[in-house]
Amino acid sequence: MAADDVLPSWRTGATRDAVEGFLEAASTVPAERRVAVFDNDGTLWCEKPRYVQEDFLLHELSTAAKARPELAQRPEYRALLHGDQAALAELGLQRVAAALIELSAGLTPEEFAHRVTHFMKTGRHPDYNVPYGQIVYQPMLELMDALRAKGFTIGVVTGGGTEFVRAVAPNLYGVPPELVVGTLIEYAYQLRDGAPVLLRTAKVHGQLNEGKPKVSHIQAQLGRRPIFAAGNSAGDREMLEYTADAGPASLALLINHDDHDREYAYQSRSVTLDETESIVDVARREGWAVASMRNDWTTVIGPGSH
Amino acid sequence: MAADDVLPSWRTGATRDAVEGFLEAASTVPAERRVAVFDNDGTLWCEKPRYVQEDFLLHELSTAAKARPELAQRPEYRALLHGDQAALAELGLQRVAAALIELSAGLTPEEFAHRVTHFMKTGRHPDYNVPYGQIVYQPMLELMDALRAKGFTIGVVTGGGTEFVRAVAPNLYGVPPELVVGTLIEYAYQLRDGAPVLLRTAKVHGQLNEGKPKVSHIQAQLGRRPIFAAGNSAGDREMLEYTADAGPASLALLINHDDHDREYAYQSRSVTLDETESIVDVARREGWAVASMRNDWTTVIGPGSH
Repeated sequence: MAADDVLPSWRTGATRDAVEGFLEAASTVPAERRVAVFDNDGTLWCEKPRYVQEDFLLHELSTAAKARPELAQRPEYRALLHGDQAALAELGLQRVAAALIELSAGLTPEEFAHRVTHFMKTGRHPDYNVPYGQIVYQPMLELMDALRAKGFTIGVVTGGGTEFVRAVAPNLYGVPPELVVGTLIEYAYQLRDGAPVLLRTAKVHGQLNEGKPKVSHIQAQLGRRPIFAAGNSAGDREMLEYTADAGPASLALLINHDDHDREYAYQSRSVTLDETESIVDVARREGWAVASMRNDWTTVIGPGSH
Repeated sequence: MAADDVLPSWRTGATRDAVEGFLEAASTVPAERRVAVFDNDGTLWCEKPRYVQEDFLLHELSTAAKARPELAQRPEYRALLHGDQAALAELGLQRVAAALIELSAGLTPEEFAHRVTHFMKTGRHPDYNVPYGQIVYQPMLELMDALRAKGFTIGVVTGGGTEFVRAVAPNLYGVPPELVVGTLIEYAYQLRDGAPVLLRTAKVHGQLNEGKPKVSHIQAQLGRRPIFAAGNSAGDREMLEYTADAGPASLALLINHDDHDREYAYQSRSVTLDETESIVDVARREGWAVASMRNDWTTVIGPGSH
């Protein structure tokens, strides 16, 4: 590779050309419009065999159940602790998710972040057998750096928990907390032992950050329309559409998980419009850039985090 | 003043000492905890005789009524256009505010920002008779710059409309849109003439950004607990309390409007605890720093904006 290659893990080809063309065109865009957003799970780091946040929540549950064995009597927790898929399916995702959210109720944001940080230090990815901080896609870190070099403000827009991703984003991606847009838990402001604190409730604030809400939440929190967006799932569709239409200098990039050897091979199907069409097919039809993990990336998992 | 004086408009005295002491102490705080928040109206710029946003909304109404005279038939608009205080009081603030919010429904964020920018260029403060961009408090700009020099991330946390303040904050304060936390209007994501857009609705999203919600919204949007906060009204009380208790290196600063000659003399009363106690009394009791506009500032309105 050339000494000035800012995307060393991207093979030459149509996708790399599209990314480089966009980086070039972005120089002509007013600085305040240089906003880029990245989905997190499956776009910046591996989301299989489970979302990392799922592993975290299972770890939290397991820790809590050791200290308070009576927790294992609750049907949702019992099913989770035994990996009882039939029971989980019967209980339904919503009820199981609500039970997991309850586990963190009453914590301050700092206490919650501390738990995430501890988990990231001690846990390992079940298949790669490396710390979770090392399952970040090296080509995407290079792309973030290339955008930063062009003066972009970079946000992470995740369907996952805002505070979970905030606890990892500065270290993994160099993205500060205010630029993480996700699914929020409501806080209650109150006095605890005479000190004013915010405490997590068990209630999701507003809507899950997937699909159309991703677009509304980007505006609500970041206040600007992005001209670059990267995603990998049906939940990123509207964010990619909105970005692709932001003007002549704009790019929507879809990550295609087609590398069974180095990662996982799967495709996300749209739940919003046509369930028979995969998001990769939508991307091709819309003319978005599609990054094939197998063909466009020389490296998938890199040497280390940001 | 000394050549290295970063606060030239602040007179020597207890308040300046408190601010300088905090700036010094902040150097020992981890960089990621250096977050400062400022209320806007009455803290960063003049809020009398009316909030600037009120003047903007009246301007918008007046413009709309010229194009569509039938608007003047609606009781809320008629009362506003005639400055009929009795009718306004009878209609109630909530109904009047809702009618004004409706005026901007259907606009994209960019269209709304364009209107604000136009107003800021053409309008003049009714008493100072200068463009609104020049009613910013010079000492507060100096304080923001001093905090920036110490590596602070600086947010504006306003009871006013988020998008209104976002349209002025980069230019007035050097604060980007993602660091403006205010009262949000909900957006609807839809296709307009085939193009994906966000359109303002007539609905306030969640709670008005005053009092306890200011604290929750700071965490929701900025994701970090501030160690510096400045405010001037009862609506800033919880934000100041939360900040003052953030650790040994923290500062809550209250602006006291006691300068009848150069600005306006008034005090905001707490609506949350004890209505007979002014926010200035609360500040003194809590040991917060209090900036007397009359005694602590050599200049109130400075030579120009950021």
